[in-house]
Formats: sequence, C-alpha cells, structure tokens
Amino acid sequence: MKPLLKISQIKLDEPSSSDKIADKERLINGISRQFSSLSHIEINLKTLHKLPSCLRKNNYSVRIVVSEIGNSIRIIDIVDDSNIYALAIDIGTTNIVGSLFDMNSCKRLCSLELENPQIALGLDVLTRVHFAMLGRSDELHKMLIKGLNDLIKRLSDFAGVNQSNIYAAVIAGNTIMSHFLLNLDVENIPIDPYIPVCNKFDFLLAADLRLTINPESVIYVYPNAGSYVGGDIISGILYSGLYTENLPSMLIDVGTNAEIVFGCKEWILVGAGAAGPALEGGISKIGMRAIEGAIYNLDIGDNCEVRYKTIASAEPKGICGSGMIELISEMFRKGIIDNQGRLQKICDKVVEINDKKAFIIFDSANMRLFISESDIENFLRSKAAMFASLFVITRSVGLHFKDINKIFVSGAFGKGIDAQKAKYIGMIPNIDQTKFIPLGNSSLKGAEMLLMDTDLFVDIEHICNIITYKEMNVEGEFMKEFPAALFIPHTNPQILND
Amino acid sequence: MKPLLKISQIKLDEPSSSDKIADKERLINGISRQFSSLSHIEINLKTLHKLPSCLRKNNYSVRIVVSEIGNSIRIIDIVDDSNIYALAIDIGTTNIVGSLFDMNSCKRLCSLELENPQIALGLDVLTRVHFAMLGRSDELHKMLIKGLNDLIKRLSDFAGVNQSNIYAAVIAGNTIMSHFLLNLDVENIPIDPYIPVCNKFDFLLAADLRLTINPESVIYVYPNAGSYVGGDIISGILYSGLYTENLPSMLIDVGTNAEIVFGCKEWILVGAGAAGPALEGGISKIGMRAIEGAIYNLDIGDNCEVRYKTIASAEPKGICGSGMIELISEMFRKGIIDNQGRLQKICDKVVEINDKKAFIIFDSANMRLFISESDIENFLRSKAAMFASLFVITRSVGLHFKDINKIFVSGAFGKGIDAQKAKYIGMIPNIDQTKFIPLGNSSLKGAEMLLMDTDLFVDIEHICNIITYKEMNVEGEFMKEFPAALFIPHTNPQILND
Repeated sequence: MKPLLKISQIKLDEPSSSDKIADKERLINGISRQFSSLSHIEINLKTLHKLPSCLRKNNYSVRIVVSEIGNSIRIIDIVDDSNIYALAIDIGTTNIVGSLFDMNSCKRLCSLELENPQIALGLDVLTRVHFAMLGRSDELHKMLIKGLNDLIKRLSDFAGVNQSNIYAAVIAGNTIMSHFLLNLDVENIPIDPYIPVCNKFDFLLAADLRLTINPESVIYVYPNAGSYVGGDIISGILYSGLYTENLPSMLIDVGTNAEIVFGCKEWILVGAGAAGPALEGGISKIGMRAIEGAIYNLDIGDNCEVRYKTIASAEPKGICGSGMIELISEMFRKGIIDNQGRLQKICDKVVEINDKKAFIIFDSANMRLFISESDIENFLRSKAAMFASLFVITRSVGLHFKDINKIFVSGAFGKGIDAQKAKYIGMIPNIDQTKFIPLGNSSLKGAEMLLMDTDLFVDIEHICNIITYKEMNVEGEFMKEFPAALFIPHTNPQILND
Repeated sequence: MKPLLKISQIKLDEPSSSDKIADKERLINGISRQFSSLSHIEINLKTLHKLPSCLRKNNYSVRIVVSEIGNSIRIIDIVDDSNIYALAIDIGTTNIVGSLFDMNSCKRLCSLELENPQIALGLDVLTRVHFAMLGRSDELHKMLIKGLNDLIKRLSDFAGVNQSNIYAAVIAGNTIMSHFLLNLDVENIPIDPYIPVCNKFDFLLAADLRLTINPESVIYVYPNAGSYVGGDIISGILYSGLYTENLPSMLIDVGTNAEIVFGCKEWILVGAGAAGPALEGGISKIGMRAIEGAIYNLDIGDNCEVRYKTIASAEPKGICGSGMIELISEMFRKGIIDNQGRLQKICDKVVEINDKKAFIIFDSANMRLFISESDIENFLRSKAAMFASLFVITRSVGLHFKDINKIFVSGAFGKGIDAQKAKYIGMIPNIDQTKFIPLGNSSLKGAEMLLMDTDLFVDIEHICNIITYKEMNVEGEFMKEFPAALFIPHTNPQILND
C-alpha cells in the first residue's frame, strides 16, 4: 500500500568544503536514496523558502511531507511535527460528504455529510446548469467551495486537527459537480452531443481552488468518462472492484440520479437511468430526502394501518426513497393498489381528496401525509425506467439476469432499501439475495481507497479505458421495454427471473 | 530552431453523437497530431475556463500560445490575435538589462538597461546579503521585482506591446541575484562552505514572482553551478559557444565581479577573481560606473596632458573601468608611474595633495579629478588578481597561455577595454589580438538565445555537468603568483607570453 501522503524523515550529509552541493539538490539526492525508481522530484517554492533554515536547525535531518504518485514525487512541506491529514470527499448533487484521515495511522478520524449549498439554486443539476448559463456560474462554484470549506472546518474542528496540516484531498463527483468545482463551463454538458470541458483533471493545488487546507495540498479529482459518467461512478467502480471481476457484475448507484454499471475486468457499460428523482423527493409531493422525519421503513397491517420508522424517530414529514419503495410494495401486497398502481377502495385509508383518490399514510392534528394516484404513477415511471435500464443494459451484451454474478448496491439503495421489496414490485430483477452486496457511499469509499493506495491510479486509468457509456432513453430497446415495466411487477413477470 | 514560445493554429473535429470526447481531450488530441513525439501536454486552469466558448465561437479552430520544452508541451493561453512576446533578462548586481522579443518574427523589438534598485541597499552583493541576514530579505526581493516590472513596463511601452501578451521570460543572474529573485535565503552563500539553496530552478509562472506579464507565463531562470558560478556565467558560456570548442578557450567576464571561464567541450573551469570592483568604481575614489560623464578612453600627451573621451561627451565626473586601464597604461608608458605604480614628479600634473602624491587628470573651475598613489595601488591589486587568476587557472590543467585558442571577452571588458593596453600593463597575457572575441553582454545574449531555441536546454545541462568551480583566493598557487603580478607589467614579463 502506497498512501497518497506520507512523512519521510530524511538524513542528509552536512555540506563541507568537499561537498558543496546546494540545499535543494542535497535534499533531492537524499530523497532519491530513500525512494526507489523515480523520475521526477518536485519541490514547491514555499518549501524552498523554508529549506535552508530547516536543514541547519535540524542538523540536516528533516521531516518532509511527500506525495508519491507513479514516478513523480512531490515535496509538499517541511515540518517539525508529524501531523499529516487528508480528505476524501464525495460531491453529490444533494449532499457533500467528507472523511478526514490521519495519514500516519491511515485511520479515518471522522466523516460528515452536509447539504450541497448549491441546493439554494435548484435541487437538481439541470436547474443549476440553467442558472450557470444565465451567468451565475461563478456563484455556483463559490457556493460549492464554501460548502467544502464548511465541511473541512467541521471535520477538522471535530477531530481537533489544524487545517493547514491537511495536505491532500481526493474528490469524486458527477461530471457537473466536478466542473462546478473547477469553475469550468457546464453549459455544453446537457446539450446534444453532451460535451464536458474535461474528462481527466490534472492534479491541482488547494490554492487553485481556494480550499482552506494547506495551500500546497495535492488535490486529485476523479476523472469523468463523459457527461453522464462522472468521477463518482468511476470511484464507485474502483471501490466495488467490479473492474477486477471475471464474471459480469452490476453496480447500481441510486442517489439523486440513478446509474447502472455492468461489466467485468474486460469491459464496462454505464447507463444512466431516470430513477433517481422519485426516490429523493423530486417528483412525488410527499417525497423528501433521507433527513430527520423521513419515513424510511414501513409495513401495512390488516386494517391498512401504516407502521413506520422515521429518521431520528421524529414526527413524520415525508417519505424518502427507501420508504417509497416499501410503501408501494406494501400497498401492492395488501391490494391497496392494483398492478397498474390504481388505488382500490378496500379500507377507510383510501379516500378522495379534491376529487382524487389518495391513501392516508399518517394523520395527526398537525399533519396529514397521503399519497395520490399521480404520485404512484410517477413512482412507477421511475421503477419502470430502472428495470428497463437494467434489462436493456444486460441484453445489450447478449446476457441475461441469471448471468449476473454480483450486484453491488450503493447510494440510497445500498443504505436503506430492502432489495426483497424492490424485487417484489419488479424494480430490480429477481436475483438471488446472496448476490446483492451493499456498498454504502461507494463514491466516497473509492475516494478514501485512493488516499490509501496510489497504485490504484493505474486501476482508474484501466477503468476509464474500458468504460463505455450506453445511452438509455434514446434507445429503441429501452422505449420498448419501458411500458411493460410500468406494471407491478411487470406484464411478463417471467422476465424478472430471466 | 525551436522557439520557447509559439502560436499554433489547431483545427479540431467538431463533436458529434459519434465523437463525444471532452473539449480538453479533443484539444490535446489535436495538439498531439501537430507536435511530434510528446509525452505530456499541460493545460492550465485559466485556459480550460476559456476553452469551451473559444472552441464553439471559432468553429473548433483555435489559436493557442504554446511552450514546447523537450517532451513537455505547455498550453499557456487561447488567443484571438497572434501577438506573442517574450523577455530575455540579465540581472546584474549593478544593472538589470532586458530585451523584448516578438516571438512570431523572432525579432528583438528593443533593449533597455536600468539600475538594479537594490543598489539603494548596497553597491555590492555582500552588503545586500548582509542586509538580508538582518531581516530585509523580503525587501530586497521586492526591490528586484519592482525593478524588473519597471523594466518590463518601459520595454512594453516603448514597443507598444500589451504586457499581458508577454508569455515567457528567460532570466540569467548571478547566484545571489537568482536567489533574491525567488526570495530564497541567501545567508549561507557567502559563508564557508558557500551553499546556495538551489542550483537548478524549476520552471516558474509569472504569477509566482508577481511579474507584471501574463500570469501564466513560463519563467526560466538559468541554473547556477554553485555559489560563485551563477546563471549569468552559464548563460555567457552558452552564448560564447566555449562548451563546443575542441581546443581550450577562455571567457573573461568583467562586470561588478570578474569571472574567468576556461575550458572546451569536455571540461570547463570557472574561477572568480577579485578584479571587478576596481573597474567599476568600488575601490578608487575617482572610479565610477560607465554612465554619463565617465571617462572611458584616454591618452596622455608629451606634456602630461590627458586627452579623454567621456560617455555622452559630458563634463568628466570620474573614470570607468576601461578608462582606468587606459589611464594606468598611459601613465606607465609616459613614465608618470614606475613599475610599482609609484608616481614620478616628471611634470606639473604630478602634485601633492594633503601631503600625498597625485596625478591631475582634469581640472576646471567646478571640479578637479585626480588619481592618488593609493588609488593606483588598489588598481594594481585588481590587475594582479586578474592576471594571477588567469595564470593559475591555465596552469591548473597543465596548459600555457599560448595553448588558449580563443578568448571571449564580455562585460565591461568586452564593451570598451582596449585589450592592447590591458596587455601592456600585464593585466591579461600577451595573446595574439586575433584570438580576442568581444561578446558584449554575454549573459543577456545567452538568455536571448534560449528564447529562440529550446534545444539549447540540453546544452545548458551539458555545461552544468562538465563545469567545475576553482577557488582562487585560497589556493597557494594564486597567492604565490599574486605579488609578482603587482608590478607593471610583471616581475617576470616573459610569463605574459608563456
């Protein structure tokens, strides 16, 4: 394991009348002896400013903060103590999540999730891109940086770490988030033929982005593989290990957007479905993000009474993605909806509100939470899109669901969703439960992995080389499969096993 | 010839549904087709910010400012017009000199010499180093940058060039000046064992140094080969071509300090003599720099009357380096001084002033210019140091003066000094006049050369590899030769031919 950051104690020979080599070259020679087979050692100007006095004060034995990547060694700082920290960050459309690591012990000190402050300009990426096109691009960039700096401050405060001792960060995000991060123009991303400014980002310095960690910190931003395959997906693929699998495996990542990765060590397909929004509160009126008061787990009793659990056990305010899947699944199991999602008046919880049928989930003096037929319809579109995407991507390489060896599940799905219930409504195929491997936030974990082992840069390169984006919504195949999947579980349930 | 900077017009394919490569990668592919055998293309963040709109505005045909060095290509900017300029700068202890080049035509537009503003903190480098050690290092750095920015502004104004269209600079200076330029600690340079912070400087950006040209400009600072062999010498060696000579040749550079380079394509020795100050006004009371009013050429008539020429034909204010050599030479020829520099009372121009003998050079109502015996003594020390250095360095490799194939002469010497007169007083050996090749400011010209041909970076590497510093003043040999050279021309004149 080669961590992205380490402390090296370098003992140099003292200069003498027969050894008059300059300080910098002396240090480089010392480093060359300690590190093997290297081609290039870079020392920043700030380190050069400190170098002569540090050498002489410490009898030519100095402690340096080093980042070794491939054949390139970067001296980031000369230090008195050995406190070095690094960040792994996942920039989601909705949340930014960070972990702070002690790079000496390679231990995670803490993690934190904050709302992406760009939400003030729109819940979904397209709204934000729209604002960027109206000239508010700088503002969106600054909002994101402010959010990251807020995250960094809270993580550092919590762990009692000096922010200037944070010397590296690995950041993963979708293509638009990565572009906002670097303040790159996003306006061509959502317009045919969907061209980002960059796929591969050069290493940056914290100072370039005005991140409030050591200004000379190495910042690595995960590459995109196109407008719809962001660094978060690449990072997730790395974490899952899908790219090392001999047999075809799948990675399903459902966050604000849903992405499906299918592949093995030789090929990888990525398809972006439209499933996301219904699971995170974008579409249905009662939907909300998985925050305090969101119903995330429920079942329905014999009298149609809903027994639910909410996040932080708070009074229910809405229903998050996983709760929504359970709700639809339970409503179908109890016969409250038919296989087209139409409400059946089988109990007094099915009511008419403004002349439209609805099912009451929760009713109190303060609040009445109900789901309407149009909410259900919207959800079914999402579940159909998800299934059709899974079907199309599997068949596109001539394979069947039964050929899938492992299903890695990350994002909201991975955290809270009961795969059994998702299968029950035909959202995902009927694959043996043992094949499901929950990953949690795979994008964040992929970023964390890279902090610990820079040999993985080669793996990322490999992933980018074998990955292909499969456009879903314009494929005839997808549109053919979609209508049948609008039924619960499907017009042809056999296909779920196929 | 591969100039350090050029404009490239790159025509790219337009993206389509079958060609969705990102803007940056599209540009890199286009550049790769146009440039051969390259390993790394770097595009800065500012260029990435401009890239998407430039591509689309110009139908995917863009003009880029490129710096190609070895296998590395740096995209500095995307531009609408083709105006690209670059600077060559020699930072001398006394003067900073710059040339501004149009990099399309590779023509010099103008050159300018300004006083190094650090002079306010001391005429010689050691005084400035002393101030730096007293905590005024930042101030010295800022003075120098201010001077450079002043120079840049004047050159740009004169040529009618927009400073932001200057995209590169090659800078040569002695080790201390280069350190001041980068604000590196100079305090160990003058103290045994004389260790600089850096010998080789990485490429810098104008923004790193706050030079008021395009902030993304490539700045190359000539490497030192130790505390006493600065980038100005390396640059001079490059310009002279000494490092390509088959036969031993010499480069004598007399500026504020005097340096002697001796070598050929296989080896190069550098010795720093102490000749300088006497030639530029540091030591003798009447000495001054070669500015308006300085006597630079003279002869003495039968009645001891001095016929002189001054710079700008102004009323004489003092005598510069070349004038000093001519004065001593003429005084000796006329018998006004004997071979030990003692004044002889042979005419009424030899007078007593404050009980001390002096020779009147110029006398008017406003001013009386005279040289005292102690001034002459100081000068003879310098001339003896110069000769002894030349002798020691030649003998140190078992050679004789007659083995020297060419003598390149740069600095004050190169500009104004009559080698015949310097030979007459035994300051330099009696070498055939045709072997002398005047170079002018070889440090500046070496910097200019590099702007025009980056293949010369390999030559600089070669020079640095074969160069050795020969310490003069501590060598027993030097101290043995020095006293005999205090005589005019020498106690053993035969040695001048030897």
